[in-house]
Amino acid sequence: MKKVAVILAGCGVYDGAEIHESVLSLLAIEQAGASWHCFAPDVDQHHVINHAAGEESGETRNVLVEAARIARGDVKPLSELNVNEFDALLLPGGFGVAKNLSTFATGDEEMEIEKEVLRVCKAFATAEKPAGYVCISPVLIPKVYGPGAKGTIGNDPQTAAAFNAMGGEHIDCPVDDFVLDQSRRLLSTPAYMLATSVSQANAGIAKLVSKLVELA
Amino acid sequence: MKKVAVILAGCGVYDGAEIHESVLSLLAIEQAGASWHCFAPDVDQHHVINHAAGEESGETRNVLVEAARIARGDVKPLSELNVNEFDALLLPGGFGVAKNLSTFATGDEEMEIEKEVLRVCKAFATAEKPAGYVCISPVLIPKVYGPGAKGTIGNDPQTAAAFNAMGGEHIDCPVDDFVLDQSRRLLSTPAYMLATSVSQANAGIAKLVSKLVELA
Repeated sequence: MKKVAVILAGCGVYDGAEIHESVLSLLAIEQAGASWHCFAPDVDQHHVINHAAGEESGETRNVLVEAARIARGDVKPLSELNVNEFDALLLPGGFGVAKNLSTFATGDEEMEIEKEVLRVCKAFATAEKPAGYVCISPVLIPKVYGPGAKGTIGNDPQTAAAFNAMGGEHIDCPVDDFVLDQSRRLLSTPAYMLATSVSQANAGIAKLVSKLVELA
Repeated sequence: MKKVAVILAGCGVYDGAEIHESVLSLLAIEQAGASWHCFAPDVDQHHVINHAAGEESGETRNVLVEAARIARGDVKPLSELNVNEFDALLLPGGFGVAKNLSTFATGDEEMEIEKEVLRVCKAFATAEKPAGYVCISPVLIPKVYGPGAKGTIGNDPQTAAAFNAMGGEHIDCPVDDFVLDQSRRLLSTPAYMLATSVSQANAGIAKLVSKLVELA
């Protein structure tokens, strides 16, 4: 059975991994006949957002500990991920990707990627193993794959411009489809960058994951 | 479009709403052609479990605030739920049902149900509107529906015995099916009481929700 490593950025759309995208990703991996294996960096979150009020709560939470909620405890520190043991990589979205896995949300042009995230993503790229980036996760693509890598964040002009400014080639994509950079074995889909419902997010994720597992 | 009210018990299998079951429920509601509307009681959680370590963290979290993570902010206090505005009710599982929505987890024979949860569940029963209880949620059924109400929590002998001791009639049920108490328009499915994968949980939930919306 093919093994897909999944990197989670916490637990919650505004400060962690987008929960719907994460669960739908795990479901799609199983339905494609592969197994999922969750990882998260053992670092504090950038901040904690009260998702009911939409404002910072002042709490401190750990990305790995919160990601364990989505994984029902079945999550390992990202530092333990050995790329040789997996066939493919998948990153669900959520602001945590832009806040905990990278500094994209700060708007700093010199976006930094958390060191274990960068190590793992680069290792999958170097090994030419397929990788899928969902929702806002594709902002990591240009730094991981270098100039010319193709990806989508849907059709938001500002984020697409930032993607291109970092050296990527942004491609507009509808919510129920994905973009494939064939030479890099690299897939991306807009999910909640565009989706207005769970089933819309599911459509693109299921399609991307099916292709990801096929390529693995 | 039929409207399904969903009660969430927080965010996380060990101290709140089971995340997979919650997301799969929302997906299934949409796929059945209905709309979902999330609610949660505005009360503190019984406790907070570090889901990576499997132990209490000593933090204080609010059920409504954490449920908002699953609902992407789109959740209302349960006290605002007017049964007249909805066609059906759905309760995903997770230990939060036994810890935050009721005192079932304490093992006290005189289990109490949180007052807004009891009000709402009873109102759906009285109005003879269909209701679906997933995973551990059916432990609420005997107190809500009274003696003889049929439900399933899978096939765990101890929980089934507790269900019967409270006046319910427990029916063993495989993970990919549901139990229907036809006269009460009451549905239940084992989900993670039995499931060992996301897709197993999904099978029973999708089937239950499809019937729930049909009955609504």
